[in-house]
Amino acid sequence: MKKVITFGEIMMRLSTPGFARFTQVDTLNVLYAGSEANVASSLSLFGIPAAHVTRFPSNDLGQAATQTLKRYGVDTQYIVYGEERMGVYFLENGAMQRASRIVYDRFNSAFAHIKPGMIDWENVLKNVSWFHWTGITPAISQGAADVCNEAIQVARKNNVTISGDINYRRNLWQYGKTAREIMPALIECTDVIVAGITDMENCVGISGETFEAACTSFKKAYPNTKKILTTERTSISSSHNKLTGLLWNGKQLLKSREYDLTHIVDRVGAGDAFMAGLIYGMINKKDDQSTIEFATAAGAFKHSVEGDVNVASAEEIETLVKGENIGKLLR
Amino acid sequence: MKKVITFGEIMMRLSTPGFARFTQVDTLNVLYAGSEANVASSLSLFGIPAAHVTRFPSNDLGQAATQTLKRYGVDTQYIVYGEERMGVYFLENGAMQRASRIVYDRFNSAFAHIKPGMIDWENVLKNVSWFHWTGITPAISQGAADVCNEAIQVARKNNVTISGDINYRRNLWQYGKTAREIMPALIECTDVIVAGITDMENCVGISGETFEAACTSFKKAYPNTKKILTTERTSISSSHNKLTGLLWNGKQLLKSREYDLTHIVDRVGAGDAFMAGLIYGMINKKDDQSTIEFATAAGAFKHSVEGDVNVASAEEIETLVKGENIGKLLR
Amino acid sequence: MKKVITFGEIMMRLSTPGFARFTQVDTLNVLYAGSEANVASSLSLFGIPAAHVTRFPSNDLGQAATQTLKRYGVDTQYIVYGEERMGVYFLENGAMQRASRIVYDRFNSAFAHIKPGMIDWENVLKNVSWFHWTGITPAISQGAADVCNEAIQVARKNNVTISGDINYRRNLWQYGKTAREIMPALIECTDVIVAGITDMENCVGISGETFEAACTSFKKAYPNTKKILTTERTSISSSHNKLTGLLWNGKQLLKSREYDLTHIVDRVGAGDAFMAGLIYGMINKKDDQSTIEFATAAGAFKHSVEGDVNVASAEEIETLVKGENIGKLLR
Amino acid sequence: MKKVITFGEIMMRLSTPGFARFTQVDTLNVLYAGSEANVASSLSLFGIPAAHVTRFPSNDLGQAATQTLKRYGVDTQYIVYGEERMGVYFLENGAMQRASRIVYDRFNSAFAHIKPGMIDWENVLKNVSWFHWTGITPAISQGAADVCNEAIQVARKNNVTISGDINYRRNLWQYGKTAREIMPALIECTDVIVAGITDMENCVGISGETFEAACTSFKKAYPNTKKILTTERTSISSSHNKLTGLLWNGKQLLKSREYDLTHIVDRVGAGDAFMAGLIYGMINKKDDQSTIEFATAAGAFKHSVEGDVNVASAEEIETLVKGENIGKLLR
Amino acid sequence: MKKVITFGEIMMRLSTPGFARFTQVDTLNVLYAGSEANVASSLSLFGIPAAHVTRFPSNDLGQAATQTLKRYGVDTQYIVYGEERMGVYFLENGAMQRASRIVYDRFNSAFAHIKPGMIDWENVLKNVSWFHWTGITPAISQGAADVCNEAIQVARKNNVTISGDINYRRNLWQYGKTAREIMPALIECTDVIVAGITDMENCVGISGETFEAACTSFKKAYPNTKKILTTERTSISSSHNKLTGLLWNGKQLLKSREYDLTHIVDRVGAGDAFMAGLIYGMINKKDDQSTIEFATAAGAFKHSVEGDVNVASAEEIETLVKGENIGKLLR
Amino acid sequence: MKKVITFGEIMMRLSTPGFARFTQVDTLNVLYAGSEANVASSLSLFGIPAAHVTRFPSNDLGQAATQTLKRYGVDTQYIVYGEERMGVYFLENGAMQRASRIVYDRFNSAFAHIKPGMIDWENVLKNVSWFHWTGITPAISQGAADVCNEAIQVARKNNVTISGDINYRRNLWQYGKTAREIMPALIECTDVIVAGITDMENCVGISGETFEAACTSFKKAYPNTKKILTTERTSISSSHNKLTGLLWNGKQLLKSREYDLTHIVDRVGAGDAFMAGLIYGMINKKDDQSTIEFATAAGAFKHSVEGDVNVASAEEIETLVKGENIGKLLR
Repeated sequence: MKKVITFGEIMMRLSTPGFARFTQVDTLNVLYAGSEANVASSLSLFGIPAAHVTRFPSNDLGQAATQTLKRYGVDTQYIVYGEERMGVYFLENGAMQRASRIVYDRFNSAFAHIKPGMIDWENVLKNVSWFHWTGITPAISQGAADVCNEAIQVARKNNVTISGDINYRRNLWQYGKTAREIMPALIECTDVIVAGITDMENCVGISGETFEAACTSFKKAYPNTKKILTTERTSISSSHNKLTGLLWNGKQLLKSREYDLTHIVDRVGAGDAFMAGLIYGMINKKDDQSTIEFATAAGAFKHSVEGDVNVASAEEIETLVKGENIGKLLR
Repeated sequence: MKKVITFGEIMMRLSTPGFARFTQVDTLNVLYAGSEANVASSLSLFGIPAAHVTRFPSNDLGQAATQTLKRYGVDTQYIVYGEERMGVYFLENGAMQRASRIVYDRFNSAFAHIKPGMIDWENVLKNVSWFHWTGITPAISQGAADVCNEAIQVARKNNVTISGDINYRRNLWQYGKTAREIMPALIECTDVIVAGITDMENCVGISGETFEAACTSFKKAYPNTKKILTTERTSISSSHNKLTGLLWNGKQLLKSREYDLTHIVDRVGAGDAFMAGLIYGMINKKDDQSTIEFATAAGAFKHSVEGDVNVASAEEIETLVKGENIGKLLR
Repeated sequence: MKKVITFGEIMMRLSTPGFARFTQVDTLNVLYAGSEANVASSLSLFGIPAAHVTRFPSNDLGQAATQTLKRYGVDTQYIVYGEERMGVYFLENGAMQRASRIVYDRFNSAFAHIKPGMIDWENVLKNVSWFHWTGITPAISQGAADVCNEAIQVARKNNVTISGDINYRRNLWQYGKTAREIMPALIECTDVIVAGITDMENCVGISGETFEAACTSFKKAYPNTKKILTTERTSISSSHNKLTGLLWNGKQLLKSREYDLTHIVDRVGAGDAFMAGLIYGMINKKDDQSTIEFATAAGAFKHSVEGDVNVASAEEIETLVKGENIGKLLR
Repeated sequence: MKKVITFGEIMMRLSTPGFARFTQVDTLNVLYAGSEANVASSLSLFGIPAAHVTRFPSNDLGQAATQTLKRYGVDTQYIVYGEERMGVYFLENGAMQRASRIVYDRFNSAFAHIKPGMIDWENVLKNVSWFHWTGITPAISQGAADVCNEAIQVARKNNVTISGDINYRRNLWQYGKTAREIMPALIECTDVIVAGITDMENCVGISGETFEAACTSFKKAYPNTKKILTTERTSISSSHNKLTGLLWNGKQLLKSREYDLTHIVDRVGAGDAFMAGLIYGMINKKDDQSTIEFATAAGAFKHSVEGDVNVASAEEIETLVKGENIGKLLR
Repeated sequence: MKKVITFGEIMMRLSTPGFARFTQVDTLNVLYAGSEANVASSLSLFGIPAAHVTRFPSNDLGQAATQTLKRYGVDTQYIVYGEERMGVYFLENGAMQRASRIVYDRFNSAFAHIKPGMIDWENVLKNVSWFHWTGITPAISQGAADVCNEAIQVARKNNVTISGDINYRRNLWQYGKTAREIMPALIECTDVIVAGITDMENCVGISGETFEAACTSFKKAYPNTKKILTTERTSISSSHNKLTGLLWNGKQLLKSREYDLTHIVDRVGAGDAFMAGLIYGMINKKDDQSTIEFATAAGAFKHSVEGDVNVASAEEIETLVKGENIGKLLR
Repeated sequence: MKKVITFGEIMMRLSTPGFARFTQVDTLNVLYAGSEANVASSLSLFGIPAAHVTRFPSNDLGQAATQTLKRYGVDTQYIVYGEERMGVYFLENGAMQRASRIVYDRFNSAFAHIKPGMIDWENVLKNVSWFHWTGITPAISQGAADVCNEAIQVARKNNVTISGDINYRRNLWQYGKTAREIMPALIECTDVIVAGITDMENCVGISGETFEAACTSFKKAYPNTKKILTTERTSISSSHNKLTGLLWNGKQLLKSREYDLTHIVDRVGAGDAFMAGLIYGMINKKDDQSTIEFATAAGAFKHSVEGDVNVASAEEIETLVKGENIGKLLR
């Protein structure tokens, strides 16, 4: 099977144990994760070969992060190492009516200092099936935006399917450019888009009364777009959400079943799990309804798993799609 | 008060902390448990003297398992020690839509190598009130089946009440015999049966449209049977179940109230807690309705307790039967 | 801003980790807390200067408890140290249908041996805005009751607003006096009362069909009373409660919105969080409806926080009052 | 084999993890231990039946402490339960040049309130081989001293060998009597004494230039004394001690080899391990030199074991006496 | 007693538990510490009022760091808050022949962005006895160097004793200036210097065959210098060091006793503990020999304490100076 | 660089935390390790590509073990999966005079059921530089011995250097053959041997007064042998050993410096670390003296690292060989 390539920053995630608040702890749980790398890890666990491309500091932390990817079977041979630091994010798990909180400390990271030419994209994107990027990367630095564009152009040239999770983050975009200046060029060459209405508004200035309406306008402006997906989340509390997936394929809007997510364990990375599910579905040539069901089930499943990565097999997701084994004790 | 005797294998239980998956952990929680021993421990905590009979390897793990039983006040004087190993089971706690999983590693255990004559049943079953066995034991090995039968015959001769939890496990029964070949002889001498419809089907080939119908056929085939009980479990998710108890006494089918088990802590051992509640009720000469209420409350309570054993006093279960103190902060 | 002064005992709290029962653990979580100190800590975290007055043993545990208060920014300069011991309470967190349990071991503490004259109340209560006491203090010992009265008299003389959380604890009151002998004199000088119907009955012999009726009688007997507040809690299970706040201002009974508290993390200290919210509201001259909303939101929020103290900012509570950010992931 | 009976208080031990100081921790390790009970537990692990007699509060903590004893195989049938509290001691492990510290909180315990008549000593001491007490018990309260004397008198009448660990604790003895008033009557009937020179001085006013000289005077004053033992400890640091055992048998002073105790894990209970080793040696009719070697090896071994109890088999101690297996990896 | 003022950066310290390496862990221990703040915390624990001046990010981490200082009793009223980040350092504890490692991630911190005028030094340094700075601060940024100089000038004007720990760190000094350009102006006004020979060489270009010779040259160049101190450390392994303190008072070189530091728990912060001991000695007008003994004992003691701060009372250090209690179990 | 291939069983290692004994714990640390795989992991961390060949059960535990290898960068593509179980070993860390203990539970593992033909050795050993096996493998089962021989024959044919760690384990060899029947054929084709005198005696019946004498006889009997190495370990206690390496190259016996290993963290795997150091030295064409120094330094370093794998870079070992950085705090 051909490889999927993902590209983006990986940070150290430091989270408070249990439901403790930042000021209450003397230990933190540590792992290394990033939106695009989470997709690669999940795909690898689904049995699809995946390589992640990033830039790490050449110190023990960069080494530890690389080992994390390797553990999930992600190919790390294209990672480059340099000066600067590992970005960090601090996570406080919410509970009940109390919201979860993330404090970012990611500026001036080794990844933010990535520059065109550092990655040999011709080599990386040779003989691969898919390239995945997110809206976080071009928001980090001009260099990151440029390298993302480099990759997209090579991928397009090589007829690699391109997916982009347009994930608008207001707190990023601090290097002097706006999303609307940078994103259109990247989106233009992207086949599969994950975006909600506000993402579209913020990144390309397209709005719509409904998701379907916005998709129609989006497709007009970006005719290369094949599919647009999103998830709808209802937050009853930090411990209880509902989740539905939407897929617009240019003709119709398909909806997945709704998942009632009581007793949430860890919601971080659910969007990446959804993305991996979507890529899995499309690579395995599922029909659109089956794809959105698989992707949403993957996103739902992630809420029961600790950490950023959806530690799950494709079989487990298929079983959830079928509604089997729920609440069972499998011996 | 006369002792209750239980007989069966005890394994080391290694479970992942919190909601971690098997591939995510570098520590495991360890305890020693087995279906029949869990019944003995729970009875001992209810104030009823209990002794457990088993065979352990004569190493540090056998020693640790023995100490666990002692801690709960279970009499360990009849345990025999030998070669071979301690069986192990690995438990991954499910959450939400993700199922719990058990990986067994129990073949060739010291218990599987038990042989007739190793236990002095005449001595063990002298002056006792009750003998309890489960369908797990005869499924492990011919030796285990034979020793179970030895015990049942001696118990019957000594007018000891016999209970059997017919707990059909498809993955066991690998020594060349089927449940239907072995179980009838054991069931024939048993007074109190815990079994669901599929257990009856698998073990003695009796089926029925309803539990009550199956019980009626069962009683015809096995006229020594005094009562048949079971629990009905509805699994909304790994974190949320509903539980009701059923007792058929030859004349009528009695039902307990239904328990809404949200926020499940640990469901393993709930059936054993139910069994201990049932024995407690019958030894204390409760009427059938009170017995099924007590047993089901014990099973429900267990879901809030970590580990395999229902760490609870009889008073706590009585309080739950009365619907008191639920959600209180008892000072 | 002028300081709030709180007075009362602080104990070591030793709680079982997770949902373990007392007999299952080999570690205990430890912190230092007390009803009145919890109010001071919460106020300090809300940005209102607060000092706590108490008596500690002059050993490492007294030192540790003092450091806990300092950490939350509570002024500890008025604390006195002496002989005797630190009171201890053991907490077993309930879950589902299993109740939470507290075992107290608080007799003969350094605080119980407090005597009039040990605290220089004229100095402590100079230039402060508020004095807070609870019904726990006069229940501990004659000395504690006397010192509480000392404080109330000085506070009243200095025109300090006085609040009292009439928290009747049947297990205390063992030094030869009853609540009805001691409490009236303290209540008489108190401006803001937190009490439920049974507290009023037990402490001053006033009863009523409804909370409002009881309040009306209370006001007649104790005309200095400006407001009476309480919370109504519905316990579906140890993991699921509902909470509403009530405020009677002499004219009308105001109710807060009801909070649905599923997935409770730690309910201990919720009443203290409510109290701190109430003082915060009144010091900031909120209207009565806003005050009861803020206080109840604070009490609700506490259920999501580990430990006795409501580790929360005033902004977080305001946000909850507005119904914003619930279940969000704040980046 | 006949049972050994031990009598004394058991406390909850709360110790800081690792090398943390009291003011640094938010968890404490918990176990239940007491000097005499540690002897019973060690003997039970050596294969000698032992029962411990004490008085516990009839709450969850008393239950947990009882279960701890049961786990080690100690017979708990003679324990009585009552009001009052469980004594507590807080332990901070020293390291290097920093001393270990214990904060006691043991006054007014259930044991301190023991009274003559509460224990049926005739029943307890029927058909037993040995009775062991320590100087801690008579120091706790008049009642404890009286009950200790009760036991000694019955034991003597029944020809039970009596050992007493004269362990003078200056901080105890607060009930109005001095050691010199109480101890002589107890020592007078005791066969085997463990005491250092200062213990003898403080308890019976006997002094001596050397241990041997003091022993000679002691024997003159208390002619029933058969043997007097002690350990000599050299403290290089909290992490490094040296230990030698001494046994005076009325004729000569025997010395054990010296143990170089580098890398100490937990020294609490080493004296009790020594005591258990001594009783083991005498019950097994070892000669005096072998007895002091076994006892000292047991005491030395304890320094490598976490907790108060010397979790070790007799074989392990014999192996250490022979100097075998030291530093091995036994497969 | 007048306050001591310390000034410098505080970082989040993230250390691997036990002896784990960076790539092996999924939890990290977290605390907040900095060389100068460690001095303030230790002085506060010695009973000397101390305030620390720094700049924190105005987020949850800045809040947590502030609470850490408060807990030790350090006055935090002069701390300013701003944009940017909290510096972080990662610590891997060495053992045996394996060295300890620190990975710094401290650039662009809130402290690095401090600027003259942000601290009201006239207010801070009014009525204080001592001001302490280290060579780390001027190495961080021009702003930090300038603010340090600001403080020194005001302190000097107010006749405050000034100490400087000339702690040359090659990895810092990246903002375009060298130590030799910046340090002389700061040293010139400093009364008490802690510096080794290489520090002197690197910071002011003074060298010497021996410490005493270097001190003599230093004094000539910087005549305001009253005393120069340093410690000599012999590293046998990461677990075993030896430590001696040296004090040159312009007339003679005094040496402390040597400490044999086997079984090291945590050596980070030992220099700060020494510094705090030195300030304590001088403020308490100890003679020079007593001062260097106290300071070195404080530095030695720190090796037995987890974390950066010397959690110790002055009494404990005095006891160590006297050589008492070493290896004892203090009850 | 060409790959090194290692072949052998990997087990789950379950070790007690800290210095706890088997009967004291309710958690166990878990990792996956095996002698030959430890060599592969260490080589991979040294920068030499390595692949490990083994057979795992096709369940979650086999998956977790595979991920562990991947994490260290070991190529896992040749691993085969089948029925049966994962072998387990239980480790209790010794301390002081108390020996470490291992309880094995490895019979009937998936690896024990390996059969010739399951591994495509021609493919595995194509274009590789080195093949490593140990004496554990042929001791497990006839199948394992046969597959080991298969590999050796292919390796020899392909001119791959072969190393064998003749590690005689008396408890293994239970399938009906003795070491002397099986080992000679394997040793005959092996270039580099690690063996002590007793290993030689047990496996091939060669003895000698000294290591050198035994080596000479060994070479005569097995003329393909190029080098024989071993380590000499002096065990002062479980916490303190001394270690020297010996290399006999057919002409002379070379000795490394002796390492004084105080404060041992984890000695398991030290022999594998030594082996990896030896292979590293030979692949990098170090001279014999440098090779034995590097190998012994690697073995010594391992004692400071938790787990079975020597988590260390080649640079760290080189530094230790030079005697640099010992006991330093590297910033």
